[in-house]
Amino acid sequence: MVLDPKITLIGAGPGDVELISIKGAKALAKAEVVLYDALVNEALLEMAPEHSIKIFVGKRAGQHSLKQSEINQLLVDAALRYGHVVRLKGGDSFVFGRGYEELDYAHSYNIKTEVIPGISSSIAVPALQGIPLTHRGLSDSFWVITGTKANGEISSDLDVAVKTKTTVVILMGVNKIEKIVKKYQSEGLGRLPIAIIQNGSTPKEKAVIGVMNTILEQIEEEKIVAPAVIVIGEVVSLHPKFQPILASYEFVDAE
Amino acid sequence: MVLDPKITLIGAGPGDVELISIKGAKALAKAEVVLYDALVNEALLEMAPEHSIKIFVGKRAGQHSLKQSEINQLLVDAALRYGHVVRLKGGDSFVFGRGYEELDYAHSYNIKTEVIPGISSSIAVPALQGIPLTHRGLSDSFWVITGTKANGEISSDLDVAVKTKTTVVILMGVNKIEKIVKKYQSEGLGRLPIAIIQNGSTPKEKAVIGVMNTILEQIEEEKIVAPAVIVIGEVVSLHPKFQPILASYEFVDAE
Repeated sequence: MVLDPKITLIGAGPGDVELISIKGAKALAKAEVVLYDALVNEALLEMAPEHSIKIFVGKRAGQHSLKQSEINQLLVDAALRYGHVVRLKGGDSFVFGRGYEELDYAHSYNIKTEVIPGISSSIAVPALQGIPLTHRGLSDSFWVITGTKANGEISSDLDVAVKTKTTVVILMGVNKIEKIVKKYQSEGLGRLPIAIIQNGSTPKEKAVIGVMNTILEQIEEEKIVAPAVIVIGEVVSLHPKFQPILASYEFVDAE
Repeated sequence: MVLDPKITLIGAGPGDVELISIKGAKALAKAEVVLYDALVNEALLEMAPEHSIKIFVGKRAGQHSLKQSEINQLLVDAALRYGHVVRLKGGDSFVFGRGYEELDYAHSYNIKTEVIPGISSSIAVPALQGIPLTHRGLSDSFWVITGTKANGEISSDLDVAVKTKTTVVILMGVNKIEKIVKKYQSEGLGRLPIAIIQNGSTPKEKAVIGVMNTILEQIEEEKIVAPAVIVIGEVVSLHPKFQPILASYEFVDAE
């Protein structure tokens, strides 16, 4: 057999197995090797051929099993040795996914690549909770920001975002939620709606809906942890539970 | 037969038929009625049952065949009369898609609804051109902005965005490209990379990659028209054609 080295970058979507694209599923079915992340639903691996090699390269915010350079090399080595390698990432590979770095490295070896986009959690996870990122009269844009840059810090873009009316979506930010809340409160936005959604689109989905002044208490009560998507802005008030939840927080009403 | 009225809002993805999710395709296969937009690839309709009723409600920026209120009513009437109605929209239904308005109206009739997210053109179309919206060292956020608000104007959020280093994605903005370029040039950003991608993910895909100072000329040469996605920011310089194209524009080099 003549080897045809190729790397296909597939966005697996937010968690629900069926939210992968048809194109992604078809490419996965032709993989010789699959490299997958911690955020990928492992049930997706059943779509890959039984004989294919599945390698967990487990990346989560702030906790890398393999260094990026090691993943890059592994992708290239696997393609040269086995042919078609699928790189399966949670959400979309180009949204804080370091997908470009992997393709770039593959190209330096003249290995063919293909990109199959995925459904990004940044948009889909709020949508599945009934929160549209844009809505006439409330928001005509949305800003997706990382809570964990290369140096571990929140992107400084958030300092600008807090001064606008755009819907803000923060990924990998749950561990920074106190800092985030403080930024908004210091702008006098303690009553701005906020939602935090853990394990969106999966049976383990859990969400808290409130305002800046209530959310820290709610996170503690509901034990919300990473991975989760944070959505901030007036569009969150469209969530069906927003009004009843708000009413139950006396210290907000008393303001 | 007992009718079970239900409306399923499905994001069809950016254009490529196979970029619909497996879940979306399965729901489409169970539709009695399908209401679809101008941005939806009509080949997707073949996934719906042969007996199902397909209704074109053709919406494009600035050119509505049916008013939103008429679409809302049509959705409800169809669900009450025929059962399962699929509302098929280009990209994702909650990104400038007015999906929430349709669900809200359905709920006022106590009709069950389901949301199946789609791959948003805002992320996928740049990705398919090899442009990641985020990339370490270049951008740790992206801001998706409408070029056509309810009143026809560009969102004023763009005035803030031009002063940041975030990647900006403008949807429904090609007809405003001169205004957009002027905003950036007046900030001294004539050399900021910009890409405009028409019919992304389809065989008719066409893209221009350049900088603010060259892009108007390029659009004219290549006859780029709506629907197209505009991407602005340093990440566009990662496109493989960026350097060679730039070198060919003397008036940029001469600055």
